[in-house]
Amino acid sequence: MVLIKTSPTSRTPNPTLKGHKLLLTLPRSPTPTGFAEALKAKFPDLEVDVHYHEGIMTAPVLADETWKDVTILVTFRAFPEKVELAPKLEYVQLMSAGANHVLENEVFREGDAVWCTANGVHGPQISEWIISTYLAFEHRIPQYLDLQKQARWDRGDMHSIEDSADKTVGILGYGSIGRQTARLAAALGMKIHAYTLHPRDTPESRRDRAWAPPGLGDPQGVLPSRWFSGGSKEDLHAFLSSGLDLLVVATPLTGQTQHLLGREELEVLHRASFPDAGKEGDQPQQQQQQNDGTSADDGAPASRRGRTFVSNIARGPVIDTDALMAALREGRIRGAALDVTDPEPLPDGHPLWSAPNVLITPHVSGASTRYAERVLAILLENLGRLAEGKPLVNRIDKKRGY
Amino acid sequence: MVLIKTSPTSRTPNPTLKGHKLLLTLPRSPTPTGFAEALKAKFPDLEVDVHYHEGIMTAPVLADETWKDVTILVTFRAFPEKVELAPKLEYVQLMSAGANHVLENEVFREGDAVWCTANGVHGPQISEWIISTYLAFEHRIPQYLDLQKQARWDRGDMHSIEDSADKTVGILGYGSIGRQTARLAAALGMKIHAYTLHPRDTPESRRDRAWAPPGLGDPQGVLPSRWFSGGSKEDLHAFLSSGLDLLVVATPLTGQTQHLLGREELEVLHRASFPDAGKEGDQPQQQQQQNDGTSADDGAPASRRGRTFVSNIARGPVIDTDALMAALREGRIRGAALDVTDPEPLPDGHPLWSAPNVLITPHVSGASTRYAERVLAILLENLGRLAEGKPLVNRIDKKRGY
Repeated sequence: MVLIKTSPTSRTPNPTLKGHKLLLTLPRSPTPTGFAEALKAKFPDLEVDVHYHEGIMTAPVLADETWKDVTILVTFRAFPEKVELAPKLEYVQLMSAGANHVLENEVFREGDAVWCTANGVHGPQISEWIISTYLAFEHRIPQYLDLQKQARWDRGDMHSIEDSADKTVGILGYGSIGRQTARLAAALGMKIHAYTLHPRDTPESRRDRAWAPPGLGDPQGVLPSRWFSGGSKEDLHAFLSSGLDLLVVATPLTGQTQHLLGREELEVLHRASFPDAGKEGDQPQQQQQQNDGTSADDGAPASRRGRTFVSNIARGPVIDTDALMAALREGRIRGAALDVTDPEPLPDGHPLWSAPNVLITPHVSGASTRYAERVLAILLENLGRLAEGKPLVNRIDKKRGY
Repeated sequence: MVLIKTSPTSRTPNPTLKGHKLLLTLPRSPTPTGFAEALKAKFPDLEVDVHYHEGIMTAPVLADETWKDVTILVTFRAFPEKVELAPKLEYVQLMSAGANHVLENEVFREGDAVWCTANGVHGPQISEWIISTYLAFEHRIPQYLDLQKQARWDRGDMHSIEDSADKTVGILGYGSIGRQTARLAAALGMKIHAYTLHPRDTPESRRDRAWAPPGLGDPQGVLPSRWFSGGSKEDLHAFLSSGLDLLVVATPLTGQTQHLLGREELEVLHRASFPDAGKEGDQPQQQQQQNDGTSADDGAPASRRGRTFVSNIARGPVIDTDALMAALREGRIRGAALDVTDPEPLPDGHPLWSAPNVLITPHVSGASTRYAERVLAILLENLGRLAEGKPLVNRIDKKRGY
């Protein structure tokens, strides 16, 4: 063990990270490769201690002495139990994009270390999931794959297929996933409406402060043509009424966002689909659907369905499942793609599985073989900043909790 | 009938198109709306004569006299039989993007009229089909939809899902579809390799001379990082060896492109997937696949498959179907998405339907509810140019035939 000659917490440059000890806990499956090697190559004086554990959801059992000289911790969920165990801890790099699981941790709450998330690692893969499920739905890929299984060449009503040029996507939560989704939507020729909790009225406030893969996302926040914000129902309803063909739910799950989209909000989306119907005092045709003999499983025909396709990659409880199923059955929305559900896992036989016009995947949109590589890129960026005495990226605001 | 005061063929400006008679033949299904009204609104002195026919593939039967005063013809496939029948014909606007069906027509070959295609109308919808089938394949959407039908929450091997950032797409034929595909791929963070028959060595030669929807495509030809060209096997193989994760086949079907991708080319893609294997004198592991007991229908596991996913939205015969099926079965390519097949329609029971890792749709990628609107935009653009005496867009080179 080397003697610490310069204090790691000092803000004087320390290009080789001399005196620092980094503890890295890595899951055996999937195994991120190259972490330790990349760290040693860039910071030759950095001491690196690696501990393996079984999977992402487990944590290694580490002896109390392990933490004694650790200045930097890189982990999914292995933390010292008390502040005193890790007196030199200066920087914790979470390998997860979220920090929910650390908010109650004593070392997080009471220690002096800077904690950073892996925010940004999910942008590419989750935005790909959003756009591919939306386009596949519009281009009837699921139906054509069923016909392929039957070895049947049947074009069906191909003339009602709609493309996305000039349509509008509303992005509820304009973070790293929302911004990369906006980049893809802009390339499709879509207009972008962004919704954030806090107002983004200035160019500075629209910038992305989180890490993003080079060349992706919307770092300057220039892609949306309209910005909405606020914490009230009225604020949210104004956004939902803005003429959305696709609504991307990409907000964190908090007390405020539980059931953020309920019966009322789905009704707002429905009314906004038929702006003329209300003016004439008529009920839109869709409202007759429930009792017109159409089987619930077939849902409303496309021409009579609401305009908005809802894509949820956030957390299941952000949408009220019963209200969503009713909206799908009654054709109040165009359809939905859900990578998250409530309850989750969605039990066998749950009626959501067979609701009309819904695509469900089992919480996999964040999966990518590039995940570990992106965490490593964030870590190297932050170690570089630490070496230069600069503020770290993806720093968690301990009061806000994200 | 008005007397023609200024000759329609003169290159002096004629802002209201006075003296011009436009013959429009429209299919009843799908019915493009607003054509005649939009024409009359923009060119009040233009005489417009509309004839309806049953579908896109039929042509109306028109009396010989119908053509007498026609200067502008807008149609899918209604043409005068002899040049003499339409002595004033000056401009023919096809409603189709291709012109194969007119190449043998006497009025096309011998008349003086300028013929224009609807090239560009397919860019948005076909590029969406390409990207959505590719991403859906990579994100295992077809498998998860099958699990949804069984109401089963099963993540499978989610950790091997790959996203597209930093991957490479090769676009064989860099026209309107290829350029909009490039725009989407660039937003995904992919590198773009373009292949054209003729070299595009200068900024001027890289420009798109065809119509494109505003804001879409790659009008200046700036998206590709590498350009390939040529008509020889060596030229094509150099492109196919350039490290392609996705190969988009978007070339017209001509004598030169029939079976352009055969056994040899698929083998080139395969070898390029394992650049180190050849150097060591070894056969790549994949070559053992056929006899290792793996069922042909399951295909090779993803980790042992070739690198390239092939997407064909051009015409079936551009790819040799037998060679493609063998490559899929043997894992020489990663997979394929086919909107066109050879034979087409693909007969019931044809083995291509059930080849491993293939997605097939029945030639529907060009469908869009915006089709007619885009043809109208081209027509209005060209009528404007005609009125100003400027050269028309999407003009067919009668010697090349496109």
